[in-house]
Amino acid sequence: MIPSMAHDHAGRLARAGEAAGAAGLDALIVAPGPDLAYLAGYDPPPLERLTALVVRPDGAPVLLVPELERPLAAASPAGSLLAIVPWRDGADPYAALGRLLGPHAARGRFGAADRMWASHLMALQARLPEAAFTAASRVLGALRAVKDAAEVELLRSAAAAADRTFDAIRAERFAGRAEREVAAALSAHLVAFGHETVSFVIVGSGPNGASPHHEAGDRVIEPGDAVVLDFGGRLSGYASDITRTVAVGEPAPQVREVHAVVRAAQRAAFEAVRPGVAAGDVDRAARRVIEEAGYGRQFFHRTGHGIGLEEHEPPWIVQGNGEPLRPGMAFSIEPGVYLEGRFGVRIEDIVVVTDDGVRSLNEAPRDLTVVS
Amino acid sequence: MIPSMAHDHAGRLARAGEAAGAAGLDALIVAPGPDLAYLAGYDPPPLERLTALVVRPDGAPVLLVPELERPLAAASPAGSLLAIVPWRDGADPYAALGRLLGPHAARGRFGAADRMWASHLMALQARLPEAAFTAASRVLGALRAVKDAAEVELLRSAAAAADRTFDAIRAERFAGRAEREVAAALSAHLVAFGHETVSFVIVGSGPNGASPHHEAGDRVIEPGDAVVLDFGGRLSGYASDITRTVAVGEPAPQVREVHAVVRAAQRAAFEAVRPGVAAGDVDRAARRVIEEAGYGRQFFHRTGHGIGLEEHEPPWIVQGNGEPLRPGMAFSIEPGVYLEGRFGVRIEDIVVVTDDGVRSLNEAPRDLTVVS
Repeated sequence: MIPSMAHDHAGRLARAGEAAGAAGLDALIVAPGPDLAYLAGYDPPPLERLTALVVRPDGAPVLLVPELERPLAAASPAGSLLAIVPWRDGADPYAALGRLLGPHAARGRFGAADRMWASHLMALQARLPEAAFTAASRVLGALRAVKDAAEVELLRSAAAAADRTFDAIRAERFAGRAEREVAAALSAHLVAFGHETVSFVIVGSGPNGASPHHEAGDRVIEPGDAVVLDFGGRLSGYASDITRTVAVGEPAPQVREVHAVVRAAQRAAFEAVRPGVAAGDVDRAARRVIEEAGYGRQFFHRTGHGIGLEEHEPPWIVQGNGEPLRPGMAFSIEPGVYLEGRFGVRIEDIVVVTDDGVRSLNEAPRDLTVVS
Repeated sequence: MIPSMAHDHAGRLARAGEAAGAAGLDALIVAPGPDLAYLAGYDPPPLERLTALVVRPDGAPVLLVPELERPLAAASPAGSLLAIVPWRDGADPYAALGRLLGPHAARGRFGAADRMWASHLMALQARLPEAAFTAASRVLGALRAVKDAAEVELLRSAAAAADRTFDAIRAERFAGRAEREVAAALSAHLVAFGHETVSFVIVGSGPNGASPHHEAGDRVIEPGDAVVLDFGGRLSGYASDITRTVAVGEPAPQVREVHAVVRAAQRAAFEAVRPGVAAGDVDRAARRVIEEAGYGRQFFHRTGHGIGLEEHEPPWIVQGNGEPLRPGMAFSIEPGVYLEGRFGVRIEDIVVVTDDGVRSLNEAPRDLTVVS
């Protein structure tokens, strides 16, 4: 749950309605998930029973909820912001939603929340076969991508707790422990330093580090391994996400070399960030350094992703994204190089665009850390 | 993760393809979530990067995955069952998916996984505007609803662990503890008795018990309270879900009366279950008992839901559902009565349809338990 006092849900709802109108949409249809939490401070689990917030450019927002969740919705910030319309088991909630979408719904243009279940969308489409649906992120992505001061502070707190987790783990022994044991220790540190939940913990040792989304397995870490540590969770509802690559004992020369290349690529991307620069140009800055070092084919993912209520959200720091960066945007910078069957290196920080440049929210040391 | 050895993924994929053909579909499009875990033993987190399994009546299944998750997919049971087609950041995965759907995709009829993100479905619809999409549960729901012997055994293990959790909590003191503290104890017991994860814990004391999906708050439990305890998690990938209502010290006469009504309703529903009976008739059996006792308006939710890899899945035990029960179907029977502002009572067991009747997987005592 997000501390509701800190956030201006009424303002967000108003801006979302205006932006929907400017985008030519008759309404946004927002299902449980980060969009609903952002707009209305209501964060129930997504279920087969339909819950949907309707935000229109020309009317007050309305929240359709299952009867048995009405008390929960009423007790959330949504309860004082919105009209709540309940429906009962056995009734057709899509008919009820159609009515809330207004008299012209049959030929309407709607933005549906990205994380809405396809089953809910298809049921609504079956009822409104002439209506057009597009991803609500086209409207909400730009609103959510720019964080206000309170959100930046929450992301900074989450990043600081992730930094402390790295400080704690690098003081521990790696050699002889299974990846899974190091992952459990990382999870425990994340919680001890204030995270409510742990979202993911990657411990990729030796050849496993060359699989960027390898989680953590039974492999026992050996002296000489490079180990990719990528972990994060939620603190006050906002996400952390950091990656550091450590060496267990004296690293092989190529580990040092690749780490230096990735470090230089990350620095180049960082230095490319300022308002007005296209998101794709930040990716290009990192990629050029790695290509010039001869590892271009071994860097096969984007340079970063936005972060906030979700671990991954706009803006996408990916080639071809011409979206200009704006002050308040928060995202990861995380180039990597992966040598299949041998090792991987990735370095990741969360940064926020300032009025004239960039600020890193993570401060953990970025040089190759040697652990025992 | 589901222990893959136990499950016949190849058979499930073949049956899903046949069922899709019988339903007039050209393919099923299965995103990360329980459908993908069921069919292919691959269970990655849903993300903005598209992962999609294509199952066709007339061809081998194919799994489209982001390049950086290819090693994970290959290491799962899917790796030996399926062709894996990777796509790289910067490429258009919907174009790749369109190609996998075959030369006639433009006017195809497809079943999309219920839990696929709407953003993925809408992106595919934008590429195939003449194609028709329907919920994959129309095909997969019936397959997944009937559990094989191995699945029933996994559900039984999860139910037994939930029973032990109730046995442990009813020996503890309730009066003077906040709902949240009892919820934390329930979570700890669920894990101690073998659950990998805790999915939900409801502790609804006194008036909070009248809100069926109330979770657990700061209210301190008092002598005389009725307390609804509804909790569950995952054990070997399969879900548990049990509800018992306890009385803290000697209950008020109306608590005893309502509990007896709900107990009788649950028994009536249980006795209505056998192969061939419509799911809606089980709901009716419970509802009739409660209506005759004068509490019909206070029982405002369905009687139950299927359970397996998901807490809630087909069959739905709801009025109007004419679907006949079949041996191997597993679902909850959970009538309740909710007196707003005063208290609630709900009793829930997981049952499985046998060749000639029904078997309860939960065995915890159903009579009103008095706790201290």
